[in-house]
Amino acid sequence: MKKAKKKINAAILIIGNEILSGRTQDLNVSFVSNWLNINCGISVDEVRIVPDIEKKIIFNVSDLSKKFKYVFTTGGIGPTHDDITSQSIAKAFKLKYEYNIEAYSILEKYYGKKKFNEARKKMAKMPTGSQLIYNPSSAAPGFKIKNVLSLPGVPLILKSMMVNLKKYLIKGPLTYSKTISLVTVESSIAQYLDQLQKKYLKKIDIGSYPFFRLGKVGVSVVLRAINKKTIRKCEIEVLKMVKEKKIEIYSFQA
Amino acid sequence: MKKAKKKINAAILIIGNEILSGRTQDLNVSFVSNWLNINCGISVDEVRIVPDIEKKIIFNVSDLSKKFKYVFTTGGIGPTHDDITSQSIAKAFKLKYEYNIEAYSILEKYYGKKKFNEARKKMAKMPTGSQLIYNPSSAAPGFKIKNVLSLPGVPLILKSMMVNLKKYLIKGPLTYSKTISLVTVESSIAQYLDQLQKKYLKKIDIGSYPFFRLGKVGVSVVLRAINKKTIRKCEIEVLKMVKEKKIEIYSFQA
Repeated sequence: MKKAKKKINAAILIIGNEILSGRTQDLNVSFVSNWLNINCGISVDEVRIVPDIEKKIIFNVSDLSKKFKYVFTTGGIGPTHDDITSQSIAKAFKLKYEYNIEAYSILEKYYGKKKFNEARKKMAKMPTGSQLIYNPSSAAPGFKIKNVLSLPGVPLILKSMMVNLKKYLIKGPLTYSKTISLVTVESSIAQYLDQLQKKYLKKIDIGSYPFFRLGKVGVSVVLRAINKKTIRKCEIEVLKMVKEKKIEIYSFQA
Repeated sequence: MKKAKKKINAAILIIGNEILSGRTQDLNVSFVSNWLNINCGISVDEVRIVPDIEKKIIFNVSDLSKKFKYVFTTGGIGPTHDDITSQSIAKAFKLKYEYNIEAYSILEKYYGKKKFNEARKKMAKMPTGSQLIYNPSSAAPGFKIKNVLSLPGVPLILKSMMVNLKKYLIKGPLTYSKTISLVTVESSIAQYLDQLQKKYLKKIDIGSYPFFRLGKVGVSVVLRAINKKTIRKCEIEVLKMVKEKKIEIYSFQA
């Protein structure tokens, strides 16, 4: 992987009526986002979920690919009529939508010539010039065209393919985090956290998240930054405040 | 609730670094989307997830509120420095961001005068002219301004507030669904479903979703429409195909 010094951003475009209608709980956003940060130092800065409607996919692929370094799409690359991601991406970039020879050959081999029917052949159709993202689970590859990387929607299959898209990405600096969970309420530490965030402006991103666990009400203070030492320095300040205010610590987490 | 004959659409805007970074699994999209359909006949047609950055919230509130009948925001209305949803919505609509007298009074009563500190007072600040969405869990209300309805991010609290936003919504026709899960693979029924979708164009939305459950590989065929009879008619056609192709039925679901 090539390396960049600057933060690299990305967007995720989830394509699928089943996610929008609430029928299916999306699990790909948190997985892909975590994976990209840990493995590639890429930060997901926006997510959109859109229905299986061609003009909506075209608009969002086009819009997001201009605004972000990478766009990861999930869903809509299967064999059925509602799988229209590949053809929509081709249209977004004004490219032909046609058989990718390598994908065709992979799928023909996987299914055998006799069982390689029209629906299965459809999965070999992509925007012209696409590079494949190999699929060790169910053969049908994803693809990369320009700065858009297309993955399937089924979480298990998607997960198995992530390692195969690494070669297409430039690596950015990793973001580290430290979570200090406290037995307190947000309003008791809000003023302090506000001052702390101002002090570490642009160096650390401080988040405050209430939790309810095992009968305890608390707040998770999350410090996120590229520089580990800065996180450590900030953490010491938080712990000093915690001691002064006599707040019970619930847990630490990387 | 007032009633409309036409489909009513909406967007959800999830505001929060913790969702984007993958630290927290979003649970609100599926809940809100399901709830709106079942209780109000409102269809969520787009979701966006954005970070706690003022200009991004302003842009998306402004953009989505023009494109959709309703916009539901979740997150960022708490007492801490990273809770900037209310002030950003005020800016998006060029409105003042100030104490809402009713919200102030609710919170003062809830916490008691002595414990009603600055951080807690912040939760009474809203765009001028906001109407409250009452919160039976933790007092701090959400609000409605123009066609934007602001809810908290904590799923348990959000859930408890949904009933209180009903009065602000116009009811559309409900969407019904029927799921027929089959022990088959998508490519075996893809051609048939394609023809069926063309036959029922704009009347029924047919979805096809692979599943892996208890060692069985299958496909859930989901029929969604406003008209129950049309769903039943289409279901009969699917069952005819199932019989002809000798496909095992795994389950039925409303």
